[in-house]
Amino acid sequence: MLAIVRRGAAGGAVAQRLLAACPDAELLAPASPDAFGALLRRLSTAGTTLVALGPLEDVAQAVQPGPDTAPVVVVAENGRAVVPLCGARAGGDELARQIGAALGITAAITSGTPPAPVPGRLAVVGLGPGKAGLMAPEVRAELDRAQDILGYIPYVRMAGPFRPDQTVHVSDNREELDRARHAFALAAAGRHVVVVSSGDPGIFAMAAALFEALERGDDPAWGQVDLVVLPGISAAQAAAARAGAPLGHDFCVISLSDNLKSWATIERRLAAAAGADLVLALYNPISRARPWQLDRAFEVLRQIRDAATPVVLGRDIGRPGESLTTTRLGEVRSDMVDMRTVVIVGSSTTRVLPRRDGKTWVYTPRWHEA
Amino acid sequence: MLAIVRRGAAGGAVAQRLLAACPDAELLAPASPDAFGALLRRLSTAGTTLVALGPLEDVAQAVQPGPDTAPVVVVAENGRAVVPLCGARAGGDELARQIGAALGITAAITSGTPPAPVPGRLAVVGLGPGKAGLMAPEVRAELDRAQDILGYIPYVRMAGPFRPDQTVHVSDNREELDRARHAFALAAAGRHVVVVSSGDPGIFAMAAALFEALERGDDPAWGQVDLVVLPGISAAQAAAARAGAPLGHDFCVISLSDNLKSWATIERRLAAAAGADLVLALYNPISRARPWQLDRAFEVLRQIRDAATPVVLGRDIGRPGESLTTTRLGEVRSDMVDMRTVVIVGSSTTRVLPRRDGKTWVYTPRWHEA
Repeated sequence: MLAIVRRGAAGGAVAQRLLAACPDAELLAPASPDAFGALLRRLSTAGTTLVALGPLEDVAQAVQPGPDTAPVVVVAENGRAVVPLCGARAGGDELARQIGAALGITAAITSGTPPAPVPGRLAVVGLGPGKAGLMAPEVRAELDRAQDILGYIPYVRMAGPFRPDQTVHVSDNREELDRARHAFALAAAGRHVVVVSSGDPGIFAMAAALFEALERGDDPAWGQVDLVVLPGISAAQAAAARAGAPLGHDFCVISLSDNLKSWATIERRLAAAAGADLVLALYNPISRARPWQLDRAFEVLRQIRDAATPVVLGRDIGRPGESLTTTRLGEVRSDMVDMRTVVIVGSSTTRVLPRRDGKTWVYTPRWHEA
Repeated sequence: MLAIVRRGAAGGAVAQRLLAACPDAELLAPASPDAFGALLRRLSTAGTTLVALGPLEDVAQAVQPGPDTAPVVVVAENGRAVVPLCGARAGGDELARQIGAALGITAAITSGTPPAPVPGRLAVVGLGPGKAGLMAPEVRAELDRAQDILGYIPYVRMAGPFRPDQTVHVSDNREELDRARHAFALAAAGRHVVVVSSGDPGIFAMAAALFEALERGDDPAWGQVDLVVLPGISAAQAAAARAGAPLGHDFCVISLSDNLKSWATIERRLAAAAGADLVLALYNPISRARPWQLDRAFEVLRQIRDAATPVVLGRDIGRPGESLTTTRLGEVRSDMVDMRTVVIVGSSTTRVLPRRDGKTWVYTPRWHEA
């Protein structure tokens, strides 16, 4: 039997994660610090394996560690430390490692001969634009084999549903580096971990964040993880396919987000790409925090490209409620675009053809004059 | 009963295509022009539906068309014309259309009231880099439903095997526009046609050629075809995933083929992309007809980018015998590359990390200074 004993009101979120990691455990929450110590002592004496959520010192005083004590693992209330206090060889080390993996931290194993760690697998996968029919079978298989799935909430939902034996760790979209570290910690503890990205994980998505975490990380175990990147069909490709073949010739893919690069760099790249007559696919075109940048980008492009240049706006292509708009560089405005739109701006040769449904095809021929 | 009657030795290839299109037909090859006429007359009198492979005039003299004659369809020995000579309303028109579709030409239907054509479906699909696990399920389903499959031989092989009721039309890689026209003719005749590309059909592949054929084509029936583009994972994405995440930040995709654009345009684009510090993915890097261009491209890039810039060479990634080489811009030479290699040249921020197997990861961080 395994009991999770929680001291007082703090640590509620951590307790929930422990329960998710040890679904057979019983969660006990004594009313006072004194009751916490008394309960631990009673359970430990009775041979119950314990996960104590509270200060190490308090737990050590309560259970009085001895050579034959049942395993007791202590977890900090903020979830940032896990220590096998007693019964390390009787399963305490292993339990601490499991909990560490679930919390994305390394267990403070101090016993003499830890078993050689079995490095896990960490796959960062591309779900494609958002419909099952455009997700690679290899990605589906990797998701089906995973023990832990990490990602931004809507992408995890898109990749699911998952089985009860699979643990899902959702997080906000702005926590890429934290998510990457958590993924490495889980995999280093032997878990089979999948980090999900929409589109292609290598195109403005999680793959680069994982390598960044790996490079900055100081845990050598991370380098032993079986790390793979599985590609996917990107949003630009899905939008291009729906529109015709606007990327049919030389093109570039540029993010308009100036969170991690200067706006001057972005303008310089836009001008260079427009000057070299490349088709442009623009990611992260707009957000609440970046309201004026897209109109400025269109201005930069209009100084170089003709106003008649075809522009494709693909929103949520491949997902429910998708929309595709084709317009011209002279007419496009930022209020036609939101953060879920990919903007494709044609080259000087990009052409518009009528479609049988009254809409238009947009394509860039293979030839280029001059 | 349906008989294909062939005059003499000419038209053998066309006869084989007719047999493929009409698997229940009997192929008869009389020894002389006189025997050809006599056989046609005898079969027609007996009420046999005929496909005659020979000059229209000779056939017309032999069968003596009348109002109650069984259908006779005449096909030119070079396969470039098909004419329903007799029994048009008794099935001759329909048979001529079927044969036209199989040969990729329009049947010369001259009877008064042709049935409204049922436009077919034409899908240009991306097989991905070359393994089943990276092909989108939608593409697989489209291939399974197709009646006619067209493409460059190795890609058709990669997409197969196909069923006996599916017709495969293979062609050489340099015949994109002819293949596109053939595909439209088949689809306009009501067939379900799939054109296969490796990678993404919208990235230096068949989609642009199809729209080019559609725009130039003067058959209004082509515009009625249910035309769709199904995207796929491109070679650059597969190579990038294997290497790490070199396309993790702004990048461009440029073909080094100067078949359809001037070399000056290519050099200008390379210099602009290098100057704007975009990662470059180079397609069609080299061929027997273009032996010096790749070294010249490296020279252009070396004038702008540091010699230490990481370079990834991905050959046949996702196919048997794939190879991945990471090197530096100062060291890369064209003899390390062939036409099946994608060349990825990093930006100023692209980084190299050690890998547990002694190889290296290459990735471009999400941030960019300056």
